[in-house]
Amino acid sequence: MLFDTVIRGARVVSSSETSLCEVGISEGRIAALGTDLEGVEIIDAEGLIAMPGGIDSHVHISQPSGPGIEMADDFASATRAAACGGNTTIMPFCLPEDGQTLREAVASYLAKADGQCLTDVSFHLIVNSVDPVTLGQDLPALIAQGMTSLKVFMTYQGMRLTDAEILQVMDVARQQGALTMVHAENEDAIEFLRDKAERNGHIQPVHHARSRPVPVEREATHRATTLAEVAGVPVMIVHVSNGAALEEIQRARARGVRVFAETCPQYITLTADDLDRAGFEGAKWVCSPPPRDTDEQAAIWAGLEQGAFDVFSSDHCPFRFEDTAGKDAPGARASFRNIPNGIPGVETRLPILFSEGIGKGRMSLETFAALTATNHARIYGLDDKGAIAVGKDADIVLWDPAMTRTITQDELHHGSDYTPWEGFEVTGWPVRTILRGKTVMLDGHPAGDPRGMHVARSKPEVTA
Amino acid sequence: MLFDTVIRGARVVSSSETSLCEVGISEGRIAALGTDLEGVEIIDAEGLIAMPGGIDSHVHISQPSGPGIEMADDFASATRAAACGGNTTIMPFCLPEDGQTLREAVASYLAKADGQCLTDVSFHLIVNSVDPVTLGQDLPALIAQGMTSLKVFMTYQGMRLTDAEILQVMDVARQQGALTMVHAENEDAIEFLRDKAERNGHIQPVHHARSRPVPVEREATHRATTLAEVAGVPVMIVHVSNGAALEEIQRARARGVRVFAETCPQYITLTADDLDRAGFEGAKWVCSPPPRDTDEQAAIWAGLEQGAFDVFSSDHCPFRFEDTAGKDAPGARASFRNIPNGIPGVETRLPILFSEGIGKGRMSLETFAALTATNHARIYGLDDKGAIAVGKDADIVLWDPAMTRTITQDELHHGSDYTPWEGFEVTGWPVRTILRGKTVMLDGHPAGDPRGMHVARSKPEVTA
Amino acid sequence: MLFDTVIRGARVVSSSETSLCEVGISEGRIAALGTDLEGVEIIDAEGLIAMPGGIDSHVHISQPSGPGIEMADDFASATRAAACGGNTTIMPFCLPEDGQTLREAVASYLAKADGQCLTDVSFHLIVNSVDPVTLGQDLPALIAQGMTSLKVFMTYQGMRLTDAEILQVMDVARQQGALTMVHAENEDAIEFLRDKAERNGHIQPVHHARSRPVPVEREATHRATTLAEVAGVPVMIVHVSNGAALEEIQRARARGVRVFAETCPQYITLTADDLDRAGFEGAKWVCSPPPRDTDEQAAIWAGLEQGAFDVFSSDHCPFRFEDTAGKDAPGARASFRNIPNGIPGVETRLPILFSEGIGKGRMSLETFAALTATNHARIYGLDDKGAIAVGKDADIVLWDPAMTRTITQDELHHGSDYTPWEGFEVTGWPVRTILRGKTVMLDGHPAGDPRGMHVARSKPEVTA
Amino acid sequence: MLFDTVIRGARVVSSSETSLCEVGISEGRIAALGTDLEGVEIIDAEGLIAMPGGIDSHVHISQPSGPGIEMADDFASATRAAACGGNTTIMPFCLPEDGQTLREAVASYLAKADGQCLTDVSFHLIVNSVDPVTLGQDLPALIAQGMTSLKVFMTYQGMRLTDAEILQVMDVARQQGALTMVHAENEDAIEFLRDKAERNGHIQPVHHARSRPVPVEREATHRATTLAEVAGVPVMIVHVSNGAALEEIQRARARGVRVFAETCPQYITLTADDLDRAGFEGAKWVCSPPPRDTDEQAAIWAGLEQGAFDVFSSDHCPFRFEDTAGKDAPGARASFRNIPNGIPGVETRLPILFSEGIGKGRMSLETFAALTATNHARIYGLDDKGAIAVGKDADIVLWDPAMTRTITQDELHHGSDYTPWEGFEVTGWPVRTILRGKTVMLDGHPAGDPRGMHVARSKPEVTA
Repeated sequence: MLFDTVIRGARVVSSSETSLCEVGISEGRIAALGTDLEGVEIIDAEGLIAMPGGIDSHVHISQPSGPGIEMADDFASATRAAACGGNTTIMPFCLPEDGQTLREAVASYLAKADGQCLTDVSFHLIVNSVDPVTLGQDLPALIAQGMTSLKVFMTYQGMRLTDAEILQVMDVARQQGALTMVHAENEDAIEFLRDKAERNGHIQPVHHARSRPVPVEREATHRATTLAEVAGVPVMIVHVSNGAALEEIQRARARGVRVFAETCPQYITLTADDLDRAGFEGAKWVCSPPPRDTDEQAAIWAGLEQGAFDVFSSDHCPFRFEDTAGKDAPGARASFRNIPNGIPGVETRLPILFSEGIGKGRMSLETFAALTATNHARIYGLDDKGAIAVGKDADIVLWDPAMTRTITQDELHHGSDYTPWEGFEVTGWPVRTILRGKTVMLDGHPAGDPRGMHVARSKPEVTA
Repeated sequence: MLFDTVIRGARVVSSSETSLCEVGISEGRIAALGTDLEGVEIIDAEGLIAMPGGIDSHVHISQPSGPGIEMADDFASATRAAACGGNTTIMPFCLPEDGQTLREAVASYLAKADGQCLTDVSFHLIVNSVDPVTLGQDLPALIAQGMTSLKVFMTYQGMRLTDAEILQVMDVARQQGALTMVHAENEDAIEFLRDKAERNGHIQPVHHARSRPVPVEREATHRATTLAEVAGVPVMIVHVSNGAALEEIQRARARGVRVFAETCPQYITLTADDLDRAGFEGAKWVCSPPPRDTDEQAAIWAGLEQGAFDVFSSDHCPFRFEDTAGKDAPGARASFRNIPNGIPGVETRLPILFSEGIGKGRMSLETFAALTATNHARIYGLDDKGAIAVGKDADIVLWDPAMTRTITQDELHHGSDYTPWEGFEVTGWPVRTILRGKTVMLDGHPAGDPRGMHVARSKPEVTA
Repeated sequence: MLFDTVIRGARVVSSSETSLCEVGISEGRIAALGTDLEGVEIIDAEGLIAMPGGIDSHVHISQPSGPGIEMADDFASATRAAACGGNTTIMPFCLPEDGQTLREAVASYLAKADGQCLTDVSFHLIVNSVDPVTLGQDLPALIAQGMTSLKVFMTYQGMRLTDAEILQVMDVARQQGALTMVHAENEDAIEFLRDKAERNGHIQPVHHARSRPVPVEREATHRATTLAEVAGVPVMIVHVSNGAALEEIQRARARGVRVFAETCPQYITLTADDLDRAGFEGAKWVCSPPPRDTDEQAAIWAGLEQGAFDVFSSDHCPFRFEDTAGKDAPGARASFRNIPNGIPGVETRLPILFSEGIGKGRMSLETFAALTATNHARIYGLDDKGAIAVGKDADIVLWDPAMTRTITQDELHHGSDYTPWEGFEVTGWPVRTILRGKTVMLDGHPAGDPRGMHVARSKPEVTA
Repeated sequence: MLFDTVIRGARVVSSSETSLCEVGISEGRIAALGTDLEGVEIIDAEGLIAMPGGIDSHVHISQPSGPGIEMADDFASATRAAACGGNTTIMPFCLPEDGQTLREAVASYLAKADGQCLTDVSFHLIVNSVDPVTLGQDLPALIAQGMTSLKVFMTYQGMRLTDAEILQVMDVARQQGALTMVHAENEDAIEFLRDKAERNGHIQPVHHARSRPVPVEREATHRATTLAEVAGVPVMIVHVSNGAALEEIQRARARGVRVFAETCPQYITLTADDLDRAGFEGAKWVCSPPPRDTDEQAAIWAGLEQGAFDVFSSDHCPFRFEDTAGKDAPGARASFRNIPNGIPGVETRLPILFSEGIGKGRMSLETFAALTATNHARIYGLDDKGAIAVGKDADIVLWDPAMTRTITQDELHHGSDYTPWEGFEVTGWPVRTILRGKTVMLDGHPAGDPRGMHVARSKPEVTA
């Protein structure tokens, strides 16, 4: 049998084992794993590691971000950065603009993505309104079309839902078979602390972190898992930043609630001290929840090591420092309140975890695959993704485990004008990204046409 | 390429994904996964599920069991039962007899196994003495030979070690790169309660369960994880029976201790009431820790669902009821104290979990594979086992997911004269077991020659 | 020295010790403890126990309860019942009626109490609005006048506050030195479950309990203690009904939050099954949080025994069954939602705890005094109350520890037309209640004029 | 009525309230509390605070301490120091010397105390052997004579008991109505760490602390409370040093086990860094458990504030630095292992807590009385002690709350040649100690004859 492409010589990793074998690809799918395979194209991967293409299930692109603020990435730049960072699928959030219905927002969002993407994409739906059209018509229709995950916010004015509204959304999720994702921080408590900070003249970026302390996230996490318990649904707690919130998740699981948990690179490598850099430089690290301290980093690592986290995502939410907190951004300079929340990370997520995890002996290759691809596919219903297995999409990334790099803005492909990991050294870097059989990144450079498409998903089994 | 054997038509399961593909086997190894494979032998597995062959990492065979008591299984019968129950590897414990060194015991045990086994076997070492020869010579030598797991008991007179002795063993494990397994029950507390029971005339089998209550296991679990913390080693807590013990494990993990956890079929299907059956019939359910109640079963299920358990084993420890507690066994009739602890289960472990887990929608095929094979291989260093992946041993079991069976002693192959699950109904049954490419069970009957051999193991990565 | 009154022969109990001595009273105060005291009036208390007069810090009287519903007790009947139940001070809640300011409500409430009371009274302030007048003027003024405790509700439409509003109230409490009390149940979750129950035709009283399950109280308790942590104030969690909520309180304390806890007779003696009695009879047991089950009763007892609770109150909230859920109350019969929440209990609180606690050997006399009087005085700033000590108000209740009674509506003095403890047998009953030196109850009958007055309180030390 | 002595003008404190009143004393007992009392002797206590005389329930005197080592205090010096530190009763431990029975040890110990004591004393019994005479004869006899508390050690070679032995002792305690006290540290784990330290050349005093880390105490605490649970007895965990051990106590209480807890001045004021002072100076701070760090101090304070501790004792265990670790003590200099464990503290316990607790606003006068006197009396059955109440022994200490002192060895009265609190500044100091009506300390100097006697105790109610 002659395959379209054969990858030779790599150690092939799945979430359960690593094999030294060849991968035969035909018509964009993995057709065989074996030896002595023949192919039209032969990729020599001697000394490399073949991983399932990274899936980043937490990415914000071209999302409405308030008056006068534009996100730094559109689909073209975000998927370019993603592919260069070893990803083959990213999952952006679709948020209606003022006046839009959710279905209109999705249509517009699909249009923006169309023909632009170097990776596949698949949308989560942000529910910021519980009007009858959204709950009764749009959600059922969109879930049926394969957008089987909903996100609700417990924070951010204008986006946050009340507990009553979250329960309504969860009830639709239960009926329609979708997974509910929750950003868990208590907005009222944050607002109380933010007002107090401002009254005391504490307007610098570091007060972003100080006005969102651990208890505010712990409380919302306890509440989110209780709402899921009451509604009888599984729930994904995104971007868990500290041990106290993780403890609430573990306690909920022990009560029998099905809780998934996500963490991100910022919570194992950054701290609130980063927000305290001179001038307004600290604005580059403003994200929510904020990075904590080294004790909490250790707690997140303990969670990763004991299997308490299901997925490791970027929460890529890119802005341009010059626009949002630069010298000519008087709003941000007046108070940290006005700094848009979010940092870029879709391109650096995988190298950071590879280096900190595998490189430092804290994580096996298989666990890396699970946390960065396999579990995302399984939990969110990307049935053809997430594993190097016969029949799956040929989404594969080749890693050079020995390549040493210093992360620097100059060499990244995202739309932000900085990276929070400037100067961070890593060992291990993706050298080739293959999407459905075609190379979309080679040796650090985007390659080929934007063949990425939107992927419909099945209903998560846990909601069945 | 012409394979020795090709399995066609099955859904092929690994711990991370399920593919509809063919499996090509050559020279006892999995050589390819793909389609249109050609083979000398073609196995038609249409409608079946191909799982990694079951690994049962907790099995007792021909173990010294006290004066006048013989275990009901030797290697021939135990591996026959294991193969018929869908297993390709079992891991028995090697316990020195009085006067034997550990190395002598291993030699004698290898001799007993030689030429008898229908599945592969690999030994754990029971350390019941911390003399200089055992710690300084035998353990290093045997670990170097690939017996990379040690077991210590906190219970059973004559076998239990003190905390000081356990720490010495753990220190050797740390230096030599072996994994320490612990049977965690507080012998002193049990003895106190057992004496009290007997003084009060409570001699029936149910008092076995009542004199080993949950606190006795919870305490020892807390202590075992603390000893591991002090010694700086990972630890496997075997046969966890209840939620309180599991909570101690989770708390230790949150402190950063590397703790593995095992549970068994008895803790999700049986209760202490089974020991309370009329006459001395209850003796058939005497094992340690004892089955608890339905609340604790639910806690164990919650643990399985949230990923708190790494492995699901049988703790097969077979006796003949007639010998040990029958009419002519006056010792047992005088007090539950004299009933040997242990129940047979190597043949029924997998069907029970398949039916209760997959059949009842509480577990995915992938999680089943992980809990019954992949994780055992990974944790204990069986590098060539545990997955249907290119390069691994062709250890495969074919399941008919629709076959309904009622478990009954008449149809089992172990040496015991009863099964604790008599009358238990299951859906899903293994119909063919393949060891290194050769069929060793077909349609419920042992097949072929005893080709099983002892397998040396690598040092567990976690101890590196 | 000749005292106005001398109590002779009693065992005199304080929260720290019990003495066999005489009590000399002059001008309404305790003037001496000793022997051979001489007095104008001699009270022979041989064989009796002299306790500090009961303080019931959780009582609802003449409170607005929705259209067409009137509370069953005014100040006259409530304090009469209180005195007959061994109390000398009760602490009702002052709730503004529609259109009233908080200060107007207090004025009107003081007027209602004036000249009517057989015990002393002291008001808590319910804050159901955070308008500038309430927060900026009324609360500071009223706190300065000695109403040093505020209550907020997380449940009940029209009364509940948002987290943001609770934080504002707590901030005023912090600045002015008042203690914040919280009714902790998640209204949104309850509403979700209530709607669901009604949609399924579950309209009987027992569904009141089922739509307010333990998680709903546990969640709100976690949140209330977190809000106190964020605001930097102590907090009193009232009427804790179960072990999970208590666990949240203990966890908050371990984090350093100052949390007081209250429980009530209903949570150690009643269960949700009481709400399931035939017909609408169950409406007599409708209160919030609802009684749970015997496991939760045991958890509350464990809390009482380990000192986890500071006060034991009645949450007396009396209605007449005929009015609210009787044959001619179509609203209640249409849905449990329309049954006013609350049960009478000011008269039975002390005998129930005396009998269940002291009588059954689960509580010392001293702990009883602490939980029913001393701690209420200390926590709420009733400086002259709560102990039989020189200089304190002569508020004393004499108990006959051997008197056996069956609680029955016929012999009670409250305004309700039933008691939830009908037929409940107790040993130990108060036989004389003395308020500031004057007997106000003797042998089960009210005595003397209504001399009770409103008592101003100091600021709780914990808020200093 | 003319009293022998009247104390005038003091604020009189009990564990429940503080009164400005006079105390009338006759025949060594408190005869009256009131005003205008007349007495033969009038003590002017204007501006002072009258507290119940301190009870120190954890004191070691003249205890066998290994070959060549003598404790620094005999009964004369220890009670002199105790009286000067505001105590009226101390509770030393009686430990048999080699070859002695427990009854012989008590007889000898009573003889040593006879006529020497400036305070009352009452003995705890150390059980270091479970031979039939001790369990079957001596303990019942001695408990019946009013020595109603037993202590067992989980650490110290030669003194430690196994779990089996502790259970036997607890069973005797249950039958005879005594309270079991436990020193909870895991000896085996300590020995393991101590050996390791020595092998690595870590012989300085600070390694005493490092070889007894928190997990070693946490584990033993979990175990001790489990043994009490299994035996069905209450238990006192002495000298709790950290938050993890306290958490185990709270968890045991939540399970329904009756657990009392003690902490000491060293755990709120000292840290392991004190053991790391230059040369062997650190030996002055060697005690077990060792002082921890400021985080653990905060955890102990949180426990004190939330009522998690019942008693605050000194664990006075005095040695002379010159003898035990001085230049001429080669053993100690060879390894920390040889430094006797214990520090002096009977004289400084109360001023330290008064200053750090009351002085810094973290503790009320009433709580101080409870933790230093009332609870000791209640828990250990000192029926006539612990409160300023009519009928109790007139054991009273007068405090000058404004007196400022710097603790220094020169002004202390114990037999040690140093104090671990050298230079520690306190506000508040006892100026007069009254034992059964007679002044035994005045203005910092011992006064009067040694009238102290051994006091028999009742059986603790909790064991009834």
